[in-house]
Amino acid sequence: MHLGRVIGNIVSTSKCEQLIGFKLLIVEPLDEHLQRNGQAEIAVDAVGAGNGEIVFVVDGSSARHLFQPEKPDSTPIDAAIIGIVDSVEVG
Amino acid sequence: MHLGRVIGNIVSTSKCEQLIGFKLLIVEPLDEHLQRNGQAEIAVDAVGAGNGEIVFVVDGSSARHLFQPEKPDSTPIDAAIIGIVDSVEVG
Amino acid sequence: MHLGRVIGNIVSTSKCEQLIGFKLLIVEPLDEHLQRNGQAEIAVDAVGAGNGEIVFVVDGSSARHLFQPEKPDSTPIDAAIIGIVDSVEVG
Amino acid sequence: MHLGRVIGNIVSTSKCEQLIGFKLLIVEPLDEHLQRNGQAEIAVDAVGAGNGEIVFVVDGSSARHLFQPEKPDSTPIDAAIIGIVDSVEVG
Amino acid sequence: MHLGRVIGNIVSTSKCEQLIGFKLLIVEPLDEHLQRNGQAEIAVDAVGAGNGEIVFVVDGSSARHLFQPEKPDSTPIDAAIIGIVDSVEVG
Repeated sequence: MHLGRVIGNIVSTSKCEQLIGFKLLIVEPLDEHLQRNGQAEIAVDAVGAGNGEIVFVVDGSSARHLFQPEKPDSTPIDAAIIGIVDSVEVG
Repeated sequence: MHLGRVIGNIVSTSKCEQLIGFKLLIVEPLDEHLQRNGQAEIAVDAVGAGNGEIVFVVDGSSARHLFQPEKPDSTPIDAAIIGIVDSVEVG
Repeated sequence: MHLGRVIGNIVSTSKCEQLIGFKLLIVEPLDEHLQRNGQAEIAVDAVGAGNGEIVFVVDGSSARHLFQPEKPDSTPIDAAIIGIVDSVEVG
Repeated sequence: MHLGRVIGNIVSTSKCEQLIGFKLLIVEPLDEHLQRNGQAEIAVDAVGAGNGEIVFVVDGSSARHLFQPEKPDSTPIDAAIIGIVDSVEVG
Repeated sequence: MHLGRVIGNIVSTSKCEQLIGFKLLIVEPLDEHLQRNGQAEIAVDAVGAGNGEIVFVVDGSSARHLFQPEKPDSTPIDAAIIGIVDSVEVG
């Protein structure tokens, strides 16, 4: 998983039906000092994250499994916001 | 998932039979400002995307699961276009 | 798998319920000479690792399978600390 | 998936028995203009590709699933050549 | 899969019990000319590879499946040495 900040969202009316109802947020990745460190990705929101919030994201097939058993295997996603970060403790 | 722009397609007559019927598009990855930010990939089209359109792409095993349960596990793909982007809202 | 050093942790009260009870550590990746070589990630601790310790981390779906069969497939993680390193022998 | 060019092969007599019978080709990745754009990988050939041919490659678990149901899950591969490219149409 | 050279090993007494009995080798990645081209990783040895030998490595979930059906899904690894390379033929 990695840290990120929600910086926006995308609007898509023509999309796979399995994605209907999911909020598609744009997340910029952050390092442990909360500085951006790579390219933004699109992640499904699983925790009610808002714009500007620091979150953490899971990538790959584990994002898809988040929605099991309700929507097993048919959810074509590879990134999900799984938590809002209260604090990062480093040192 | 990540943003991308359809910039072309490939033609292949000698391919795995599981790929017959799939449209194989070339997608350049885009950042949140719609600037190219990496190497192009080949993605299967699941939404009827056309050349030049801004789309979003799912990578990895989740692309394969998109075609379940009709073609479970036998679809050897690792990238799929799953939506056409109407607008990107950042800020 | 790759080498890493535990450099901190994150606190998150608003997170997926499947993550309750997991310790979320920040790990900086290390090369074989124990020098940092990339961006830090967040990994679930499976071995009781402490701050500053040299560990090794598994990424991707294999991290999720670590917690089977108790929590199969419902554990949305993509990185886990699976060992504390006593020594690295290179030469 | 991504474009590539077959540039050679490896010979290995001491290997996992699940790999017996597979042709192990070296593929250099290509961009949409057929210029090399990264490190070569070793891919299993599923279409009878020859040296110098332009192909496309699937990576990750989807390469393994290519050989289902005949050799399910026991085929330890993460890249496969799944098509020979007749033409790349960009623009 | 990719080429690599075994350059060492790690010793870990405090690790997940699923890893007991596995040899954990450090592998530096090599390009097709056998020059190092990236960061070393830790891979489980499946073929009896020794220090200094040229090998090839499978990454991701396919490494885990190598040990099925004896240890299905409970083996938390993401890289395995699956062959010793006799020769690399490029040109």
